[in-house]
Amino acid sequence: MSLHAQRRKDLIHNVCSIPEESAKEFAEKWNIPKYTASMKEAVEDPETDIVIVALPNYLHKEAILMACKAKKHILCTKPLALNASEAKEILDAVEKAGVFHGYLEDLVYTPKTLKAIEMVKNGSCGRILWTRSREAHSGPHSAWFWDKKQSGGGALVDMGCHCIEIGRSFIGKDIKPVEVMCWAETQVKPIEAEDQAIALIKYENGAISQVEVSWNFRGGMDLRDEVSGTEGTIRLDHWLRTGFEVFTTGSTGKYISEKAESDAGWLFPVGDEVHALGYPDMFTDMLDSLEQNKIPRETFYDGYVVNAIMDACYNSAKTKKWEPVELIGWRGKEGISSHVDLIEFDEKHFLIKKEKMPDGKTKLMLKEKSSGNIIQRVIQG
Amino acid sequence: MSLHAQRRKDLIHNVCSIPEESAKEFAEKWNIPKYTASMKEAVEDPETDIVIVALPNYLHKEAILMACKAKKHILCTKPLALNASEAKEILDAVEKAGVFHGYLEDLVYTPKTLKAIEMVKNGSCGRILWTRSREAHSGPHSAWFWDKKQSGGGALVDMGCHCIEIGRSFIGKDIKPVEVMCWAETQVKPIEAEDQAIALIKYENGAISQVEVSWNFRGGMDLRDEVSGTEGTIRLDHWLRTGFEVFTTGSTGKYISEKAESDAGWLFPVGDEVHALGYPDMFTDMLDSLEQNKIPRETFYDGYVVNAIMDACYNSAKTKKWEPVELIGWRGKEGISSHVDLIEFDEKHFLIKKEKMPDGKTKLMLKEKSSGNIIQRVIQG
Amino acid sequence: MSLHAQRRKDLIHNVCSIPEESAKEFAEKWNIPKYTASMKEAVEDPETDIVIVALPNYLHKEAILMACKAKKHILCTKPLALNASEAKEILDAVEKAGVFHGYLEDLVYTPKTLKAIEMVKNGSCGRILWTRSREAHSGPHSAWFWDKKQSGGGALVDMGCHCIEIGRSFIGKDIKPVEVMCWAETQVKPIEAEDQAIALIKYENGAISQVEVSWNFRGGMDLRDEVSGTEGTIRLDHWLRTGFEVFTTGSTGKYISEKAESDAGWLFPVGDEVHALGYPDMFTDMLDSLEQNKIPRETFYDGYVVNAIMDACYNSAKTKKWEPVELIGWRGKEGISSHVDLIEFDEKHFLIKKEKMPDGKTKLMLKEKSSGNIIQRVIQG
Amino acid sequence: MSLHAQRRKDLIHNVCSIPEESAKEFAEKWNIPKYTASMKEAVEDPETDIVIVALPNYLHKEAILMACKAKKHILCTKPLALNASEAKEILDAVEKAGVFHGYLEDLVYTPKTLKAIEMVKNGSCGRILWTRSREAHSGPHSAWFWDKKQSGGGALVDMGCHCIEIGRSFIGKDIKPVEVMCWAETQVKPIEAEDQAIALIKYENGAISQVEVSWNFRGGMDLRDEVSGTEGTIRLDHWLRTGFEVFTTGSTGKYISEKAESDAGWLFPVGDEVHALGYPDMFTDMLDSLEQNKIPRETFYDGYVVNAIMDACYNSAKTKKWEPVELIGWRGKEGISSHVDLIEFDEKHFLIKKEKMPDGKTKLMLKEKSSGNIIQRVIQG
Repeated sequence: MSLHAQRRKDLIHNVCSIPEESAKEFAEKWNIPKYTASMKEAVEDPETDIVIVALPNYLHKEAILMACKAKKHILCTKPLALNASEAKEILDAVEKAGVFHGYLEDLVYTPKTLKAIEMVKNGSCGRILWTRSREAHSGPHSAWFWDKKQSGGGALVDMGCHCIEIGRSFIGKDIKPVEVMCWAETQVKPIEAEDQAIALIKYENGAISQVEVSWNFRGGMDLRDEVSGTEGTIRLDHWLRTGFEVFTTGSTGKYISEKAESDAGWLFPVGDEVHALGYPDMFTDMLDSLEQNKIPRETFYDGYVVNAIMDACYNSAKTKKWEPVELIGWRGKEGISSHVDLIEFDEKHFLIKKEKMPDGKTKLMLKEKSSGNIIQRVIQG
Repeated sequence: MSLHAQRRKDLIHNVCSIPEESAKEFAEKWNIPKYTASMKEAVEDPETDIVIVALPNYLHKEAILMACKAKKHILCTKPLALNASEAKEILDAVEKAGVFHGYLEDLVYTPKTLKAIEMVKNGSCGRILWTRSREAHSGPHSAWFWDKKQSGGGALVDMGCHCIEIGRSFIGKDIKPVEVMCWAETQVKPIEAEDQAIALIKYENGAISQVEVSWNFRGGMDLRDEVSGTEGTIRLDHWLRTGFEVFTTGSTGKYISEKAESDAGWLFPVGDEVHALGYPDMFTDMLDSLEQNKIPRETFYDGYVVNAIMDACYNSAKTKKWEPVELIGWRGKEGISSHVDLIEFDEKHFLIKKEKMPDGKTKLMLKEKSSGNIIQRVIQG
Repeated sequence: MSLHAQRRKDLIHNVCSIPEESAKEFAEKWNIPKYTASMKEAVEDPETDIVIVALPNYLHKEAILMACKAKKHILCTKPLALNASEAKEILDAVEKAGVFHGYLEDLVYTPKTLKAIEMVKNGSCGRILWTRSREAHSGPHSAWFWDKKQSGGGALVDMGCHCIEIGRSFIGKDIKPVEVMCWAETQVKPIEAEDQAIALIKYENGAISQVEVSWNFRGGMDLRDEVSGTEGTIRLDHWLRTGFEVFTTGSTGKYISEKAESDAGWLFPVGDEVHALGYPDMFTDMLDSLEQNKIPRETFYDGYVVNAIMDACYNSAKTKKWEPVELIGWRGKEGISSHVDLIEFDEKHFLIKKEKMPDGKTKLMLKEKSSGNIIQRVIQG
Repeated sequence: MSLHAQRRKDLIHNVCSIPEESAKEFAEKWNIPKYTASMKEAVEDPETDIVIVALPNYLHKEAILMACKAKKHILCTKPLALNASEAKEILDAVEKAGVFHGYLEDLVYTPKTLKAIEMVKNGSCGRILWTRSREAHSGPHSAWFWDKKQSGGGALVDMGCHCIEIGRSFIGKDIKPVEVMCWAETQVKPIEAEDQAIALIKYENGAISQVEVSWNFRGGMDLRDEVSGTEGTIRLDHWLRTGFEVFTTGSTGKYISEKAESDAGWLFPVGDEVHALGYPDMFTDMLDSLEQNKIPRETFYDGYVVNAIMDACYNSAKTKKWEPVELIGWRGKEGISSHVDLIEFDEKHFLIKKEKMPDGKTKLMLKEKSSGNIIQRVIQG
């Protein structure tokens, strides 16, 4: 048993960045023993157990292949690759090398999301019909992410990958994403990639997963998820309405709160930002899984599925039609059909709906089996 | 000046319903002087000033044409007609007859929506980029609404008409809806029509309006709207989170609250349901407009536009492609192009983004005019 | 049956104010037929049915006595009088004159409060143990209210009267307020009266009602109520969190929203302010009661009880002790004792608490009847 | 630099509990190497670095004195002691022994509270005028806490200690608590101690801290704090409204969520309960402070101050008057007077209030320096 402190035992031993000056600064700031500008040197360092790839998207493949060659375990940030074909290449490489691979999809690991997934698995919401995941803010921090060639896309690649994987986690990661419809547009920013997008992902069991992303949002950072099923519904707000509300005149002129767009008026800080974004739970899963020889919640296979869905999204945005998700080597269930619930009411009727009315009576909507007609009936109690 | 009481001066004088027994009961319950089972009799009654059409959708046309013939003013519930072509016929009829026509789109008239529309018009949100309107509950109260032939469709026809008009009101009712993408499915209920649908409506100025409807929602009635623009964002919750929260063990066994799905645990009643749904403000606008010879906020022309958008939705749900909105006689603006904002930073750069960082410095994302490359620059203050 | 419009039938026919110029301006602005600077003239006007007293507190008595003499019905704003003895004099006068008297305690009439009172009466919260009513903003609009001689006090007289009556309405207006403890201080403003106060009011049945008022609040207007009982709890927010949320950069420089302290950042407008403050429901009750010869929800007797409680508050703030509420002619129940609930568990034990544990078992806290000792017992299911 | 995992380095090596069987079970469940029923054995074990006292309140002193004798560092749960005199004895003992002492006041360490305290220190709320801390649920888990002799009191001792220390943290822990007014009652439960209490604590600088506790709350666990000052206000909700909302029909019959009072209808789970209650941040501060030879945020001195305030509360509840807080050896500031802000408007006036009106004008409330009269003035802009 350990104390619930944040006094961690897993340390970063080496940081690689270019130019070297930048690596040096980072190492000094965070008290990291080694630094280098050579990826090869960092990866092949015998003291390196795990390579954490947190590079611009277009460099993921190079770094991962290098780590595979050195037989190092690998954790890689999202999205796994620029597209599905590159992601597949990466997946094949780590599996061939036999190294541990974790896909750093932090937003699936927020404490709220983890508990919500658990509740959904326990049946609290019944059969899942619909999910929505929304991520919106004023745009990324790094210049490379605004350049489609380096990032692979815009708001969809930046944040859609989170939304897609949150949807999959609620619907069931063994349920096949079948086809995709996507709208993606550059509405505001003078860039090539989309700064706003909406996607619908249809799963084989008939569930639909809705993705909303934007780099044009005003008011801070909007991170919300919803899931709805035959027996219940869940709403999560990770950032703007978490039970922390501040009004300030701002008259003191001092620094007030991180990441809020304004520094006066009503502000909504988050207590522990890193925790609310899922990092502690994510690294715990990754490192525990590695030590205990288990498969973590998110692997490169999941990263590949996400890339395949995003490819279909971009395809659909162009063709303006639903487009199939092309998956090579699907590892989940197949042939699951969507269906409509027929609830037997009596010999002659199915039950459509039952509603308590203000006068205490109950109104029933029934479907006659023989005719298919819908009738209403009011009963006592 | 009058007192802010609900003591109203506009009365219902005649009710028509079938069978006559039902009309009689209603008249007695609400203290209405006359009742009849004959639509003709009610409409042609010389005391009838205004005909309010609150019939199953498939009967709207018949009633309205009859009222036109009798030169009576007409208020009609939503949706105006089963489809756009029928709606156009209705619109042409009232305009030819020269009678007053009001489209009873109550949810555009909720006090929150009215104030939000005003704020949007005043520029609080800048250029509108996106709206979302969501309406979800466990399904309609009347048997006829579950039957596609009588209603014209399912959840989309029942509630999508509200969502569409709320979106139009935020984006601008003079901005042309251009094309539509829609997913509609029967996920749960044993009916022919869709019980869940999502639609995207693209406007000529590049704004997108998102519609979400469901008859499968658990947890009461979900009525929420959002609008987001270059300078701001608005979120409205009309029903489930309005500042009224109740926990009860339910142990008293007494009647607790209307329309909540459960009668124990945490409940969220609405203070004044009729007011929250927009009825008082809607009838005030209608009757004031009639008296003052003004055009009300919502006319049959709006009803026609909504029907045209819904037709495109059903079309898209079938073809699985974006489908154009076919509008005969568009009365708003035309030729408005969507555009990207170019904000001049200096002679050589456009500004993409400006962000205050925790260390007090400001990070700029700039686009080089000559190369099109995106660079970042950190400045003091 | 009438339509749910706000087209009202009750009109203001005469306005009296000084100087006459001000009465004239008001009459013109609101289209009121008559105006005068003479209270006598307005009151004695044969066309005057009801006198509405909306004067500085220190003038209530004079106006009401004048109306009594003219045998006019009277509605008077809160507080009824400067203190309980003046309030008693007023109450005696209207009762002797036999005129209709309504105490315009609007915040008891907000749609949320009315529905919450109904739920409490229906038993949703069981036996009421505690209520809290909070009212806080940046101070009154009129100069006279900042002057103790004209108003009778500070924040407590301004807003405490609302909070007290809300508490009474939840606990039961027939339950006697017994004693009071109050802290009142001038914390910020350069005035004689208190700008912040907290009071506890103990009722004969053991319930406690907590009052919080402030003229020093930043962030808009804080209007919240809570009530808690053996079977449930209710929370009301009337102003700041009612399901209407706006973020705006404020860059348009246009007028944005009433009563918000800031005009940029996150704002929380109220849809229909007049409605949310209870005015329509209040005047409806008053005028319907007058017409139907009924006693309205709030009469001058209630105004007198509130003044008596406020007197006890000021007394307690001075003596720093609990002080009795002095009521001449209490009209409610008497001799109701507070009590502790003894729930029989079995022959030998009372039940204190029952709690479901994560492992599915149930933990019981029991009190041994013989020894009075408290023991715990864990059972299956 | 370390990873944000919860993989902790600080472990529990020995557990002491009676009967030994219970210690054994606990040790096995949590994988703790040693267990014992002998407090002496556990404390004197040479491997024991720190003694964590998590015993019924009446046993704290014995355990701490034993640890002092063995020169072990000590962390002790709240409240420190049964009363102030016992707390002082404990404080003197640890200071004499020279051991590290940490007061395990977890709710001061919740991520929200820590960030809010930081904002208050940075001046976001200006001069603090008022705080309120509320803690309410259905009563403690352990039988001993229901027995006044073992716990020292009721809801106030159980949860008031949290509320008091949260108030102190906002107002300033160097500001002297001067006097106390408290109401405490046994409203529901068949016990000797109070199951509901409200206390007001006045600080030397004029700030007031309000404490609300209850063992009678229905609806889960109510943990809310507010702080209000001349320039701002903060509201925290730690448990019931944190951005996690679930509706479930409960029809699956499976386990749904911890600590909720109901398992159907709307539920409000907390993502990471241990984290939301402050444990990780608390132990981090304690252990880092010990290693770095610093004083932690909460020491036994703070525990003593809290006990002294609680003694004054119980005293006041009996005498029904404000009672002084008796503190031996106050270590903070002294002689700080409360004051009223005088804001110079011009040579002849102080400014009381400035308010933007809907017509765009500004209304000023001014106090004439010479006469003390309050006047209003309306200006443009």
